[in-house]
Amino acid sequence: MEFTLTMMGTASAMPVNNRNQSAQVLNVHGRFFLIDCGENLQSQLVRYRVPMMKIDTVFISHIHGDHVFGIFGFLSTLDMKGRTAPLRIFAPTNFGPILKFFLSYYGDGLRFEIEYTPLKMKSPETVLSTKSIEVLSFPLRHGIDTYGFIFREKEPMWNVRKEAIAEYSLTLTEIGALKRGEDVNRPDGTTIPNRVAAYKPYAPRSYAYCSDTAIFPEETQWLSGTGVIYHETTYLKGQEDLAAQNRHSTTLQVAQLAKEAGARRLLIGHYSSRCPDEKVYEAECRSIFPETYAMNDGDVVEIPFNEA
Amino acid sequence: MEFTLTMMGTASAMPVNNRNQSAQVLNVHGRFFLIDCGENLQSQLVRYRVPMMKIDTVFISHIHGDHVFGIFGFLSTLDMKGRTAPLRIFAPTNFGPILKFFLSYYGDGLRFEIEYTPLKMKSPETVLSTKSIEVLSFPLRHGIDTYGFIFREKEPMWNVRKEAIAEYSLTLTEIGALKRGEDVNRPDGTTIPNRVAAYKPYAPRSYAYCSDTAIFPEETQWLSGTGVIYHETTYLKGQEDLAAQNRHSTTLQVAQLAKEAGARRLLIGHYSSRCPDEKVYEAECRSIFPETYAMNDGDVVEIPFNEA
Repeated sequence: MEFTLTMMGTASAMPVNNRNQSAQVLNVHGRFFLIDCGENLQSQLVRYRVPMMKIDTVFISHIHGDHVFGIFGFLSTLDMKGRTAPLRIFAPTNFGPILKFFLSYYGDGLRFEIEYTPLKMKSPETVLSTKSIEVLSFPLRHGIDTYGFIFREKEPMWNVRKEAIAEYSLTLTEIGALKRGEDVNRPDGTTIPNRVAAYKPYAPRSYAYCSDTAIFPEETQWLSGTGVIYHETTYLKGQEDLAAQNRHSTTLQVAQLAKEAGARRLLIGHYSSRCPDEKVYEAECRSIFPETYAMNDGDVVEIPFNEA
Repeated sequence: MEFTLTMMGTASAMPVNNRNQSAQVLNVHGRFFLIDCGENLQSQLVRYRVPMMKIDTVFISHIHGDHVFGIFGFLSTLDMKGRTAPLRIFAPTNFGPILKFFLSYYGDGLRFEIEYTPLKMKSPETVLSTKSIEVLSFPLRHGIDTYGFIFREKEPMWNVRKEAIAEYSLTLTEIGALKRGEDVNRPDGTTIPNRVAAYKPYAPRSYAYCSDTAIFPEETQWLSGTGVIYHETTYLKGQEDLAAQNRHSTTLQVAQLAKEAGARRLLIGHYSSRCPDEKVYEAECRSIFPETYAMNDGDVVEIPFNEA
């Protein structure tokens, strides 16, 4: 079952060659989530062969142009392609007027519904929950209203081992108990322990998106236990003042956060246009957190299971 | 003196690989004009090393997204780069609310003035006139209010030949007369003909931009005498019905127009995403107008002098 991230844009606000502005697509079990919507997203979706009609939910972190100016072309193109399926958008409350502008000016005859949910939580809250996944949103600390997102697989049901069914001649009722994680206690006094007859098909995977933000204490706590964290690293070490002033993060701050949150892997991006060489950021992070990977446009990352 | 066109985007509305949406930059004598503003323009300006801070005037043909969604990122980036010089925008009247949305939502603290002039002419009118160039705008026939633009060098003053100054011992008054194109009539009854003592330093060059539009009779007349014409060819031969229905043009229609208008050269673009291979469009046009060149993103065209 897929849990795959594709980078659409890894630049910060100022345009640079060979990087687009912030956008990512996360495929969770065949459902496509769009995370942020920097300019040129629609072309990036074509370039990296993302099935754009399958995107059913959009998560917008904040309304700075480099995270949102691609929304107009994206929505227009979905319409030109004949979309009728509704599109859900989670975005801060100040996204409302942007959507209203688009709909009033370009939405005439739009054949699909846009379901917009404004974000306004003070701590992590579930915003989407399906049978197999849940998405949480939480506030970040940027100049304006900004949110991060955590995508988590739910704990799967236990699967019953085929050989156990034969060995113990398990009844349907007993199989049901095992699937719920219970032991089987038989009338003859014997017990079939769950751990002997059943297993978890997979360990839940999780991915967090954090851009743009200054580091803050609750962030580590909120991200604790997340397998893979994407975090902006707009600045390099020694640029802490610049980072604080612009409400962004430095490499070392982010690497320390990933270490303390117990992440398995750290992905970074949103590099300052003053130094768009991602390897410089990666090296600095690795001095604290070796499992750091600097992202480029088009990179595809398989989110690994939490237990190795 | 430069008269150079650089293609920023040659695609039509649907995103395709390796082409961006409509935008061009025209450098006339060191003044940079932006013509249309498709998504991703700001990155294209970086890629093709166009000095974006030198762009002083923007011409928008119409407000369909593929001609205008790049304006938000472009204006934001000019501001981030510290622009203080005013920016002039010529665009249809329905561009007003788009600019208003941008200014009300992203214009806080903008340090440069935007001078917007709505277009609403019924036939070619001069919208900008400097010492050496003039720009005319004229209506096109698309689904919505759409305009084309003609950029023309003005007739230069006559230059007086250095050897004539010595040979005839020309006075300052006589030189002034020659520069204005007059003959010199001396008190002794002799005449120094202008054509003998003076010359034109260059023959005026001209360039017309026509996108998007169906072909219409006045268009040929209005473009008559223009050296280089850029015209959209969204459709191929045999797709006349589709072109008429969507108010676009076909290759053969456009080639015929260029021929009848007496153009020296025809540039084409805005290819349908169904056939983004520009060579197919070029070959069809050349069957009628051999001096046709199909444009790709990044192409640089020197606009030639009118007389060969």
